[in-house]
Amino acid sequence: MIYIGILGFGVVGSGVTEVISMNSEKITTHLGQTLKVKRILDVREFPESEFADLLTSDADVFFNDSEISIVVETVGGVGIAYEFTKRALSQGKTVVTSNKELVATHGVELMSIASQNNCAYLFEAAVGGGIPIIRPLHRCLAANRIMKITGIVNGTTNYILTQMTLSKTDFKSALLRAQEKGYAEKNPSADIDGTDAQRKISILASIAMNGAYVDPNKIYTEGITTIDSTDIAYAKAMHAKIKLLAIFSNPDDTLAEMIVAPHLVDEEIPLCVASGVFNAIMVKGNALGDAMFYGKGAGRLATASAVVGDVLDGALHKGKNAHITQWYYPEKEILFPFDDMKVKALIRVLKTTDESKVREVFPQIDVEPMDSVVDNETSFIVGRDGNLTEKDLAEAINKIPGYISRIRIY
Amino acid sequence: MIYIGILGFGVVGSGVTEVISMNSEKITTHLGQTLKVKRILDVREFPESEFADLLTSDADVFFNDSEISIVVETVGGVGIAYEFTKRALSQGKTVVTSNKELVATHGVELMSIASQNNCAYLFEAAVGGGIPIIRPLHRCLAANRIMKITGIVNGTTNYILTQMTLSKTDFKSALLRAQEKGYAEKNPSADIDGTDAQRKISILASIAMNGAYVDPNKIYTEGITTIDSTDIAYAKAMHAKIKLLAIFSNPDDTLAEMIVAPHLVDEEIPLCVASGVFNAIMVKGNALGDAMFYGKGAGRLATASAVVGDVLDGALHKGKNAHITQWYYPEKEILFPFDDMKVKALIRVLKTTDESKVREVFPQIDVEPMDSVVDNETSFIVGRDGNLTEKDLAEAINKIPGYISRIRIY
Repeated sequence: MIYIGILGFGVVGSGVTEVISMNSEKITTHLGQTLKVKRILDVREFPESEFADLLTSDADVFFNDSEISIVVETVGGVGIAYEFTKRALSQGKTVVTSNKELVATHGVELMSIASQNNCAYLFEAAVGGGIPIIRPLHRCLAANRIMKITGIVNGTTNYILTQMTLSKTDFKSALLRAQEKGYAEKNPSADIDGTDAQRKISILASIAMNGAYVDPNKIYTEGITTIDSTDIAYAKAMHAKIKLLAIFSNPDDTLAEMIVAPHLVDEEIPLCVASGVFNAIMVKGNALGDAMFYGKGAGRLATASAVVGDVLDGALHKGKNAHITQWYYPEKEILFPFDDMKVKALIRVLKTTDESKVREVFPQIDVEPMDSVVDNETSFIVGRDGNLTEKDLAEAINKIPGYISRIRIY
Repeated sequence: MIYIGILGFGVVGSGVTEVISMNSEKITTHLGQTLKVKRILDVREFPESEFADLLTSDADVFFNDSEISIVVETVGGVGIAYEFTKRALSQGKTVVTSNKELVATHGVELMSIASQNNCAYLFEAAVGGGIPIIRPLHRCLAANRIMKITGIVNGTTNYILTQMTLSKTDFKSALLRAQEKGYAEKNPSADIDGTDAQRKISILASIAMNGAYVDPNKIYTEGITTIDSTDIAYAKAMHAKIKLLAIFSNPDDTLAEMIVAPHLVDEEIPLCVASGVFNAIMVKGNALGDAMFYGKGAGRLATASAVVGDVLDGALHKGKNAHITQWYYPEKEILFPFDDMKVKALIRVLKTTDESKVREVFPQIDVEPMDSVVDNETSFIVGRDGNLTEKDLAEAINKIPGYISRIRIY
């Protein structure tokens, strides 16, 4: 019998109890023994729950239970979840989490504590919800150098962008609809500002860099709040979709180029298969070539099933580190300077702006006029020749009279 | 230092040496020690190879080398590869293979020998080439009951079908082109007859059934040799693609419905993202929902990288079974009778055939006339109501005057 404890009886935490109960037969077969939830720690009371007798609000009761060998952390955030995780790992208990913020913020320290105590810190559910991505990247692609990862890793923003395309609604209405459907939180800022995607790509990049930790705050990030219906119309005209992409690119095993931002993505590119709340992550290995992982990136049972998958892995590697590569703080800079990264973009300007004015601010850069999709503006694609840097783009757009906006092209 | 031996220095075998050498740094980091090819067994001589001094044609020399702890089998087939695999596993050496025929034929016995000798029989490369699918299915989805798997698992046939669509060529020309490009073998029968896909879905199904072995020979299988340019034209008119699908379906955890056959697949279905030699496998878990794995299903380095990934897993689980679920021969029938499976199909008949004749042979079945795409024939979609069985379809088409062909609709 393997006993586990759950920290936080919210959406994912209660999903974990449900997955364990609905698939108990399969789990027992896989594990060779039964898996049982022993205690659940939450400050709230759930008198109606069938698990009411397992619930406690006393952390000492929870952590002093020596029968619990694996702890599921579904509290979220970097406050008490951080303290609880350290406490469990220090006791030699493997911790399984869906908390991307905590992994992206304190992953190095937490994995180190796990390693010192012969247990593991597992986080398959932190990226892509239930889609297997962490273990395939770390384990199955172990014989590959990871050259590139391009992910649609935030379901909320992908739902909003898909809605804006299909229903021709504006950003605000699409966000409202996402909130009504439970795809966006009341305070949606972490999703729509790109912070959630930033954390997820920092986790994937740290794995791709063999444990060299990528601080999410160092990744240039833009959200989708400025995308409007005209952008969507341009996308349609260009046979493209607008996707919030999280990108890690390191083809030569030198410095990694990283960005989180909305991009125009050609419809023919496989990533575009992910519409609505779906996620898709394309990984390029130097031996494998391209592989893509696709599925629902969120959802109670999907995420919980990834958590329980990790619980089983932890149980099968009891007293071991489950072969997770230890992350470390790299001594040297590992990110390529954002300003020097090359970029292609669609530039929207007022129709009153003369083409020569646009060409003037992009000297020696390819400027390609586009057919306009609205009456009062005109547009250009810049940088298709691969010579435009982010810095030059940022400076140039400030100098264009009648400048409206720009969106990057993948 | 981990020493490995390679059985067979062909395409994949030599790819394994190349992947180990090109990614040695990454492999050492992952493993915590170096990985070295100690011996290669092949009856052929390779005097020009940099590995010439590792090559031997003497099986005893190879198997008596006690330093070798992991054996890579890339011989193929079920002859000498079977004997060699048994010999290595009996010595407690983990065997890693890309040989789907051997896994699908003797998997139960080989896994049992591995288990008895505290080693593992690993075969991530047997399905989907380099795409991670075996481990994600077995390990990451361990907390899910697998309800359905639909795969485009044969790159050769997918290339041929894609060529027929894009270049409007017939089957023979497309096959010839595939052979010229190295995507099809001189004797392409295992690919085009569906046998290769049959073996691969039998492996995936055996995992999905928690180890209950599915004999590939019991899976109803059709190849793509009868697909002609008119089928392709119908597909286009129906906004669909023709794909050789390998299907396992067991939503209620009872008997599994399985088939390998070409199907008309709606373009909007994510699987259609796989064109050319690419593979895509959609998996439905009862908690996860749908997840898809996509990538190049073949190729020397891609397949070799999956083999080396398994080698690393085997090395990290030295002296253990690497947590592969033991397969077994089920006592009861586990497949739903093919004759009783429900089917939808497009039926092509000569224009001279009266619609009433078609309706006559499908009593109480939905018969939907289709616009014809060629002058001399007409067509119908049958079974959209979900009431048509494979048996009734097979009997009915024999009775239609001027019957040309039928293709299933996914």
